[in-house]
Amino acid sequence: MRLATLKDGTADGRLVVVSPDGKACAPAMVQTLQQAMEQWEDIAPRLAAMSSFPDALDAKQLAAPLPRAWQWLDGSAFASHGALMDKVIGIEPIKTDRPLMYQGTSDKFYGPHDDVRMIDPALGIDFEGEFGVIVDAVPMGTSPEAAMKHIRLLVQINDWSLRALAGAEMKTGFGWVQAKPPCSMAPFAVTPDELGGEWRNGRICLTLLVDWNGKRFGAANGEPMGFSFAELVSHAARTRDLVAGTVIGSGTVSNENYRDIGSSCIAERRGIEIVDTGAPVTEFMQYGDTIRMEGKMADGRAPFGVIEQKVVRP
Amino acid sequence: MRLATLKDGTADGRLVVVSPDGKACAPAMVQTLQQAMEQWEDIAPRLAAMSSFPDALDAKQLAAPLPRAWQWLDGSAFASHGALMDKVIGIEPIKTDRPLMYQGTSDKFYGPHDDVRMIDPALGIDFEGEFGVIVDAVPMGTSPEAAMKHIRLLVQINDWSLRALAGAEMKTGFGWVQAKPPCSMAPFAVTPDELGGEWRNGRICLTLLVDWNGKRFGAANGEPMGFSFAELVSHAARTRDLVAGTVIGSGTVSNENYRDIGSSCIAERRGIEIVDTGAPVTEFMQYGDTIRMEGKMADGRAPFGVIEQKVVRP
Repeated sequence: MRLATLKDGTADGRLVVVSPDGKACAPAMVQTLQQAMEQWEDIAPRLAAMSSFPDALDAKQLAAPLPRAWQWLDGSAFASHGALMDKVIGIEPIKTDRPLMYQGTSDKFYGPHDDVRMIDPALGIDFEGEFGVIVDAVPMGTSPEAAMKHIRLLVQINDWSLRALAGAEMKTGFGWVQAKPPCSMAPFAVTPDELGGEWRNGRICLTLLVDWNGKRFGAANGEPMGFSFAELVSHAARTRDLVAGTVIGSGTVSNENYRDIGSSCIAERRGIEIVDTGAPVTEFMQYGDTIRMEGKMADGRAPFGVIEQKVVRP
Repeated sequence: MRLATLKDGTADGRLVVVSPDGKACAPAMVQTLQQAMEQWEDIAPRLAAMSSFPDALDAKQLAAPLPRAWQWLDGSAFASHGALMDKVIGIEPIKTDRPLMYQGTSDKFYGPHDDVRMIDPALGIDFEGEFGVIVDAVPMGTSPEAAMKHIRLLVQINDWSLRALAGAEMKTGFGWVQAKPPCSMAPFAVTPDELGGEWRNGRICLTLLVDWNGKRFGAANGEPMGFSFAELVSHAARTRDLVAGTVIGSGTVSNENYRDIGSSCIAERRGIEIVDTGAPVTEFMQYGDTIRMEGKMADGRAPFGVIEQKVVRP
């Protein structure tokens, strides 16, 4: 089952169920995805049973499947991303055996075709292609095994970042606020069964194609996460209940063979340049730049649809 | 004007306007405080004009005035708190000329008399008494001067912390997730005029009386913030729009003469003990411990009411 949210002038939009071919949809029996998450066991089977899709679907009219969430916690579960970022930021490698995770702004997720408003290109505008999950209510102290059952939907995310601010905020230990404006989501939130065997070990094993200004920039696969999504959810729930509709992210998708397949963010490429030449070469994004992201299955299908956005002045 | 939220079985509760003596209330013309924040310029004058309070008010039946928020950003604006915390955590003093701020969990604020569920007392359960503000919608890039006008309500907060996790999370640079379970709010959110001259320079100049297990622990005043709330709001809004109903915190209220007036959190006292004897002496909270917090005006009034809570097993 694939779910999407139509823009209707409200902050939460209107939930629809998407046809198997992605070209049509039908209104859900609840108004919003948040409502569906709050009563998932009851609602999901009824949504999944729908077989008539009377309305044409125009991806450009879509909001994020969850246009705002009560909570967004983003991991950093790809080791090769972390190692390059340490070089970019100029810090010692982070020593921890637990998942890295920060709390981000969740009151807004950009829709997949929304223009992205950035206050100043001098702040180092960067994309971060990643995958995520949406959970129903997770009680405090839930184990990774039990957390797996709470993963109800999978999503694809662009975690927008402002790199000129990131290092300074990180060094305070307080985490990122200014460096992390709102993220974007791809059109469709999908149930794990949509990915077949490519939802494996709690990981979204799709290849994330990233094109910056129409040119291929990265094609990293989601499989080599150092922690599974179930482990990330359990980590997040160690000392708090997770409210239904909490979104948990993987962090930037990154593979060890980044020299062959590229990167899902500009900062990583700059990290490689620092390793190779002592200094970064590739500049960050400018107003008018575009970014396209599409997670591909081995058979070529793109279950989440496509993020395609432009950076603009506020 | 003072506003409160009655528990009614829903996540957002039901907004009421509180009588001047704090003993009675009247239903607001909007259901929730979140709704009021979204249309403040229209709603606030109508709420303020109410003069009949037909219902008795029992503070024990109150939720937090804003039982959940789309965003909670907490500063750390008291220099004497920061200096002691550096010693507790065992880090070099944080070097920055900008406000310190982290994004916290906002999907739940405990009501003033709710039991507080903590997963494990071995994690170093601590209170943090502080003040905060609630803003209406603040556009990205708003100056401190313009931010002042968006500060619509003032609140009193207990920012619950788990100190055994705080240092390790801070050292990753990603900020706190596990170390910061949900906060609590005092009964009443108040308009700035309620504080008269004690809302001054964008600061809540009240003395925060903190009693742990019935014994006075701290009586620090909110005036010596290194940054005003307007500066904190502007900092938060530098690269994002702040949604109406965003809550911004001061960080732990702390004064330089902490040896005379005590502290608003246990960790600070442990910092003093480290300075004096090389090691902390005071233990953190245990199950069954109580905490009481009451911000007092010079004339003895307590406009926010009282937080009075017990720590319990989940």
